[in-house]
Amino acid sequence: MNNEQLTVNNVELTHFNEQGRAKMVDVSGKAKTARAAVAWGTVALSAETFALVRDGKMEKGDVLAVAQVAGILGAKRTAELIPMCHPVGLTAVDISFALDENTHSIGVKATAKCVGETGVEMEALTAVSVAALTVYDMCKSAQRDIVIGEIKLISKSGGKSGDWKREE
Amino acid sequence: MNNEQLTVNNVELTHFNEQGRAKMVDVSGKAKTARAAVAWGTVALSAETFALVRDGKMEKGDVLAVAQVAGILGAKRTAELIPMCHPVGLTAVDISFALDENTHSIGVKATAKCVGETGVEMEALTAVSVAALTVYDMCKSAQRDIVIGEIKLISKSGGKSGDWKREE
Amino acid sequence: MNNEQLTVNNVELTHFNEQGRAKMVDVSGKAKTARAAVAWGTVALSAETFALVRDGKMEKGDVLAVAQVAGILGAKRTAELIPMCHPVGLTAVDISFALDENTHSIGVKATAKCVGETGVEMEALTAVSVAALTVYDMCKSAQRDIVIGEIKLISKSGGKSGDWKREE
Amino acid sequence: MNNEQLTVNNVELTHFNEQGRAKMVDVSGKAKTARAAVAWGTVALSAETFALVRDGKMEKGDVLAVAQVAGILGAKRTAELIPMCHPVGLTAVDISFALDENTHSIGVKATAKCVGETGVEMEALTAVSVAALTVYDMCKSAQRDIVIGEIKLISKSGGKSGDWKREE
Amino acid sequence: MNNEQLTVNNVELTHFNEQGRAKMVDVSGKAKTARAAVAWGTVALSAETFALVRDGKMEKGDVLAVAQVAGILGAKRTAELIPMCHPVGLTAVDISFALDENTHSIGVKATAKCVGETGVEMEALTAVSVAALTVYDMCKSAQRDIVIGEIKLISKSGGKSGDWKREE
Amino acid sequence: MNNEQLTVNNVELTHFNEQGRAKMVDVSGKAKTARAAVAWGTVALSAETFALVRDGKMEKGDVLAVAQVAGILGAKRTAELIPMCHPVGLTAVDISFALDENTHSIGVKATAKCVGETGVEMEALTAVSVAALTVYDMCKSAQRDIVIGEIKLISKSGGKSGDWKREE
Repeated sequence: MNNEQLTVNNVELTHFNEQGRAKMVDVSGKAKTARAAVAWGTVALSAETFALVRDGKMEKGDVLAVAQVAGILGAKRTAELIPMCHPVGLTAVDISFALDENTHSIGVKATAKCVGETGVEMEALTAVSVAALTVYDMCKSAQRDIVIGEIKLISKSGGKSGDWKREE
Repeated sequence: MNNEQLTVNNVELTHFNEQGRAKMVDVSGKAKTARAAVAWGTVALSAETFALVRDGKMEKGDVLAVAQVAGILGAKRTAELIPMCHPVGLTAVDISFALDENTHSIGVKATAKCVGETGVEMEALTAVSVAALTVYDMCKSAQRDIVIGEIKLISKSGGKSGDWKREE
Repeated sequence: MNNEQLTVNNVELTHFNEQGRAKMVDVSGKAKTARAAVAWGTVALSAETFALVRDGKMEKGDVLAVAQVAGILGAKRTAELIPMCHPVGLTAVDISFALDENTHSIGVKATAKCVGETGVEMEALTAVSVAALTVYDMCKSAQRDIVIGEIKLISKSGGKSGDWKREE
Repeated sequence: MNNEQLTVNNVELTHFNEQGRAKMVDVSGKAKTARAAVAWGTVALSAETFALVRDGKMEKGDVLAVAQVAGILGAKRTAELIPMCHPVGLTAVDISFALDENTHSIGVKATAKCVGETGVEMEALTAVSVAALTVYDMCKSAQRDIVIGEIKLISKSGGKSGDWKREE
Repeated sequence: MNNEQLTVNNVELTHFNEQGRAKMVDVSGKAKTARAAVAWGTVALSAETFALVRDGKMEKGDVLAVAQVAGILGAKRTAELIPMCHPVGLTAVDISFALDENTHSIGVKATAKCVGETGVEMEALTAVSVAALTVYDMCKSAQRDIVIGEIKLISKSGGKSGDWKREE
Repeated sequence: MNNEQLTVNNVELTHFNEQGRAKMVDVSGKAKTARAAVAWGTVALSAETFALVRDGKMEKGDVLAVAQVAGILGAKRTAELIPMCHPVGLTAVDISFALDENTHSIGVKATAKCVGETGVEMEALTAVSVAALTVYDMCKSAQRDIVIGEIKLISKSGGKSGDWKREE
């Protein structure tokens, strides 16, 4: 295998070793800096299911409270789930929800932070994914065609590559 | 709290106990039947990143091989990640990928099976989510604005509610 | 070592093998029957901390909602935490809270069920313990001398040893 | 929701975000300092069960040896079990037992240490809880009305809030 | 890829799907039968380290007591560690040690049982591996050139392929 | 118990506390330094099984690609599996395979790195063990008498005890 196959336009996939196999990239020499990442995703519901979640939100034991806890716990399991992720000492995780009455969709926003050698994009994205799956799970008895979508990075800061923000 | 608030149009959220709090629904009395679920999701890449993955696919250690393993392992962690999911003795998990040259997106299809009291939708959806996150992780050094989308159930079979297939 | 040392008054510790070492007891030949267990525990708070939890209980994101989710997830990790426990396919877990205004304590009651070869006492007790520790964690910025206490089995049913209920 | 509801007498619950939901508190800006915590708990046994444990303690494979290992492993799982706990790089965990012949109870003392931004109270308390549950599990074939109690913090050191010791 | 490449002399690797990728083999249609497996491994020590372990074995908290617990817990984690393994409801796990004074090696024997659709070879082998790694860990401050070896299946029973015993 | 029993020829087992029980050794005062460890192991196959793996290696979804991912994930679980291991913030893990046509054996080499208070020998050895077990699992339908062997440390660097390299 020719390693150059893994580079296109000076863009490189860094997860491969000399045998062309995946590895956890060596970050031993990188400085520990403060890092943050914000990710986003949506759960598209029907009007009826949306109303159930929205109203439950005002009560104890609501769907979003469970999704909140699941997402935060999920962020802490990122390195167990995503094979080439480095274990990260998360210093903060927060999740908030945005209920869109027009589209009947629930937006999930997760923020993750650490002081470390690598970024926390995957932790924020995993938090969003697990929170969204939890909303799905708790609503699936009411609706079968729920769709989770638009899971993406919104912004990141820290590290040598500098800050980044998704263009609208 | 009035439990009727949790029912709209005879549609009910079953994850709440008498205090209105979330619980793992009691399935003790349900029969063990053969069940299956198929889920789907996509990872939208740029043309350059897509080419990297596509070409790597032909080689040892490719991105999709790692995502495949991650997704299968992820399916087995579903009940740890999704709070109200029952632990399930999965009897089969399979993941396949569909590379769409036109949209530069990678489709992820996961099938999960069990012989049990509850369905395996969440296991198939979790497999898709973790596989998609792994593709994201392995490509994020090449592209920052990757979007994971359209995570949804395609079909399910088994259980008293019978078979279901998403309408196209 | 003499195995008889492990028997007193015809009461026997069954977790030891022929070398006198701990083992996971063989339940291969036991029938799968419906089993349930109810456990209880308390978290003793000051009047001030108690009020914080009680009032938060009416709101989204309250302490008890987090403890509820943690306890249910904890029940599913029992066999990972308690070395000689058998993995159990839990069919139900429920947790409820009793707030005692007189003693400023929070009671935690957990019910676990399965259809299997072994009981689910440890799953119910683990659910209580993890829920109580979570209440502790979320209140420790307000009070340092919280005490978790009286973690005990309330009742169990199923299995060859029959039903049992703690005497008051 | 009014955030002031979460403050009483200048005492504040810090686990809530702007939506009033739980979050993992941001400790990114805190200095890493040496921290330690000591926790305690008891397992109340009958005279017969106590004798079984006490005598087994002298032998290989005894109950307390299993509880010791379980407690240390449990400490390392704290952030997986307690939703809002930060992952901590534990630098030391030790557990010791005190057998009280008069009350037939087994005392469990756990010490945890780290060099980090947050304390290790929950790690010490989780170690005690898992060790106590393990003693319970290994004795439950001999006695059904075992009670785990008095799980509490004994002392903590390090961090900006300074040292603390429980008053007797 | 030609699937026939994966068959030699009518011997087949069953872990591959139609895309030639690994999958968790479908065992949905297989009957649940009683199964057992016995595995073996050794840890080769120097005379000095061997004596430390052997003598410690007589005491509380010995190396082998820790390895015993680790191996049993490890068996329960098999499906999390070995990607294509099915989750198995283990009904028994036992580990015993054989100290060979002549070779200064510690033999580790693990037995695993279940009533299920698949065998428990991997569970027995994982128990041996984790127990052996634990012995290594607890002895590595005394000796750096320890070797773990001869991890292998001794016998298996149950399942349609019938019983098997390693020839000496 | 006399602690001196745990010392022979000035060689000491450091995993024991004052009660003679196992503990996680206190490394709070040690400096964080760059550390690395390389471990090795082999999987001995028959000529037929070896050919299956070797030829599959050229294809997508091959045995070694799965073992690679499993080994890297396994390294990150070391502190969960080996009771007295400290949690380590791994900064790199890499695995490579050496196929020996003469002996029909597959060599597994794992490198682990961290910047921390303790070494990463156990992480490298666990990576090798889990990768080898995965090869075993994926080949066991073709061959039952596979043997995993010669799991050992090749070299280590960093820490106060200095560098070490196994003599051939």
